[in-house]
Amino acid sequence: MSAAPGFALAGGDLHASLEDPVLGSIAFLNEVMTRYPSAISFAPGAPNLAHLADVDVTAYAARYERHLIEERGTTAERARNLLHEYGPSRGLINDLIAEALRHDQGINAPPRSVVVTVGAQEAMLLTLRALCRSPDDLLAVVEPVFVGMTGAARLLDVDLVPVPETADGIDLDALRGACAEARTRGRRIRAVYVAPDYSNPSGSVLDLETRRRLLALADHEDLVLIEDSAYGFTAPPGRALPSLKALDTACRVVHLGTFAKVCLPGARVGFAVADQRVVRADGAEGVLADDLAVLKGMVTVNTSPLCQAVIGGMLLAHGGSLAALGAATSAHYRCNLAHLLAALDRELGGATPPGVRWNSPSGGFFVRVRLPVRVDTALLERCATEFGVLWTPMEHFYLSGGGTDELRLSCSYLTPDRIDEGIGRFAAFVREVAGPPRRGRRALP
Amino acid sequence: MSAAPGFALAGGDLHASLEDPVLGSIAFLNEVMTRYPSAISFAPGAPNLAHLADVDVTAYAARYERHLIEERGTTAERARNLLHEYGPSRGLINDLIAEALRHDQGINAPPRSVVVTVGAQEAMLLTLRALCRSPDDLLAVVEPVFVGMTGAARLLDVDLVPVPETADGIDLDALRGACAEARTRGRRIRAVYVAPDYSNPSGSVLDLETRRRLLALADHEDLVLIEDSAYGFTAPPGRALPSLKALDTACRVVHLGTFAKVCLPGARVGFAVADQRVVRADGAEGVLADDLAVLKGMVTVNTSPLCQAVIGGMLLAHGGSLAALGAATSAHYRCNLAHLLAALDRELGGATPPGVRWNSPSGGFFVRVRLPVRVDTALLERCATEFGVLWTPMEHFYLSGGGTDELRLSCSYLTPDRIDEGIGRFAAFVREVAGPPRRGRRALP
Repeated sequence: MSAAPGFALAGGDLHASLEDPVLGSIAFLNEVMTRYPSAISFAPGAPNLAHLADVDVTAYAARYERHLIEERGTTAERARNLLHEYGPSRGLINDLIAEALRHDQGINAPPRSVVVTVGAQEAMLLTLRALCRSPDDLLAVVEPVFVGMTGAARLLDVDLVPVPETADGIDLDALRGACAEARTRGRRIRAVYVAPDYSNPSGSVLDLETRRRLLALADHEDLVLIEDSAYGFTAPPGRALPSLKALDTACRVVHLGTFAKVCLPGARVGFAVADQRVVRADGAEGVLADDLAVLKGMVTVNTSPLCQAVIGGMLLAHGGSLAALGAATSAHYRCNLAHLLAALDRELGGATPPGVRWNSPSGGFFVRVRLPVRVDTALLERCATEFGVLWTPMEHFYLSGGGTDELRLSCSYLTPDRIDEGIGRFAAFVREVAGPPRRGRRALP
Repeated sequence: MSAAPGFALAGGDLHASLEDPVLGSIAFLNEVMTRYPSAISFAPGAPNLAHLADVDVTAYAARYERHLIEERGTTAERARNLLHEYGPSRGLINDLIAEALRHDQGINAPPRSVVVTVGAQEAMLLTLRALCRSPDDLLAVVEPVFVGMTGAARLLDVDLVPVPETADGIDLDALRGACAEARTRGRRIRAVYVAPDYSNPSGSVLDLETRRRLLALADHEDLVLIEDSAYGFTAPPGRALPSLKALDTACRVVHLGTFAKVCLPGARVGFAVADQRVVRADGAEGVLADDLAVLKGMVTVNTSPLCQAVIGGMLLAHGGSLAALGAATSAHYRCNLAHLLAALDRELGGATPPGVRWNSPSGGFFVRVRLPVRVDTALLERCATEFGVLWTPMEHFYLSGGGTDELRLSCSYLTPDRIDEGIGRFAAFVREVAGPPRRGRRALP
């Protein structure tokens, strides 16, 4: 077999999602990072590996096997087989996840309403696919928005409606207006994607009052809220706000989570909690998780039981608590974030160039920086070449052309020393592009 | 949080794939199996577990780590980290897979044209998504067709065109006609899904001449062939036909494979080989695998590196050969199949009731049986209740209403003793529904 020179597919003849500028810019960013391997990169939101070197996946899988045998009455042979064979599309460790969510967050969802997925990404895709029946169904997203959600919607040909982010987290009036506007065009906003805790990319948080008002609005406008809780575990102790799902008396929220950030990216295990009642044409009743599991059968069949066993064992080794499991990584990320903010303040706070601002989130991986110049890949390239620092232009996270003067710094996977060194370089870059400093800075919300 | 009794989603207001009769019938079959736990089930095509109990996944992952360190020059720390962190969407063990395909099957595809997926199911979804640009793009499938492909197409709203199976494997005249017919309606058949080796569900094989003619037709009609090679490894030694990809001089074939059947379902590792040139609007060139990797970023981000390491280690422990890796399981499945066919012959061959026939494939998991009565879930229920045997009605694998007098027997995961016992019961059932026997049987092709 060898490629015939004559036959080629035209890029424009493949699915349109492959020409989406968002996906193209991700590819470009990856390519830039490859070209500057020695640059200090604040670009990727990848988890830190410091805690991973000593993870004994074998011991954790064995811990889960023991649990099956000692607490679930599974025979030893059956327990071993469960890890090696196909498994149910819905998952194996649903009961452990449901119990952890109840224990840690007060989310009372039965195991049957949990679907274990290949990371939160698959959970997004499945939820969106189940909910959007026709091209008239729209997904509203808080903008700037995580590119994984944009990508899933593009792949499924689901149209997106951006709703601006505010200091409270989301512009509810704009969301209400978008719902009305969609209706006048014979369409409907079916769901809203929202990451209420230290969102990627902006690090924003929905305050408690806004959470309650969003839930009420969802009930009023007949919306489903797709809650991405990836970064919730990084909140400072005692300062975590209740998740939307924990406040969800009307069952409007599908709650998505992942173990990638909390403990082990390489396991690729996430989950959806979808306890919405579904009434079939024949009157039979189920929950939305049943539908997600059916769709999962057509996407990945099931999440690797081996990987589920590792994650199950990690949960069990931490008393079944997600919060306990994530405590060390959470402290580590907060330490990195504090370090990054301190370095920014040290390097730029006392003599901030005009038009330069940044926010100061209390958790998450990300800090947003505004510059008084056009922030794009050309500027990134210049910063990489001349200053040896990488970051992510924010415009990639906007659907409607915003963010052209902002960038995202991620502190998740660097060491404090590298953060110091990197912010030193970054400050020099900022001073060069933004002009002479002035005293004091105005913070971003 | 508790469910408000008032709020419910209507099943009919979810995505249409969830109301597809194919998906509904799979759910029904699963449910039937749960209701008859003591029945002997020839229904699921699940891999046999006999070889899995002793699989030492830890040792295999360690074998892959050693490979990285000793043969790829990776540091020990980096090798360990690679297994625990996120990885490239394209995969980690692409080079091992490409080398195995070259060695075992004469498929000369560079590692870059390989995408490691969460089973072959994800590979199907990604390939179909990349290739089908608009609702005017159709997927032709050889009917009866694997429900995983039907499901992936339904999920993506890609319309299917059934092409009849023949004794040679596929009705090429019908395929040619379908291409012409699509064009008259302003649409196009973009790709053809075909499982040339012991297809699921019918066990059919494309003969060599048909493979060559199909490739020529693909070139003539500008089609991409999606080749599912899941069962190719079960061919008797020396009797495997070259895969479509091995014969693919015009680069028309995307080749899909999985390690689930060969060695370890619980790892959920499959792959696509997509070496088609893609020319972008700006003149840049890539291969289709680049696009599949981008789409994968929106579906599962990447395949678990832990699982890839286990599969990589298994390959390495077998000299890098898929054929060597699958030799023991292949022999086991052939033995089971021979046992099943011998039992059918013993129980029904000498005195075959009128209208009863079955095929005799030389490999694969499946035997097709035709009965002189309507074969549906009601008949399955009766067989389960009265005879304690389960099987799969074939009509679920037809898109255009065929297969109503056929059922599928799978022998993959039973022991020879259970096969004997089960076929004894099955023969009693057949004699009851098909009436008095006659001498000799007519074989199905």
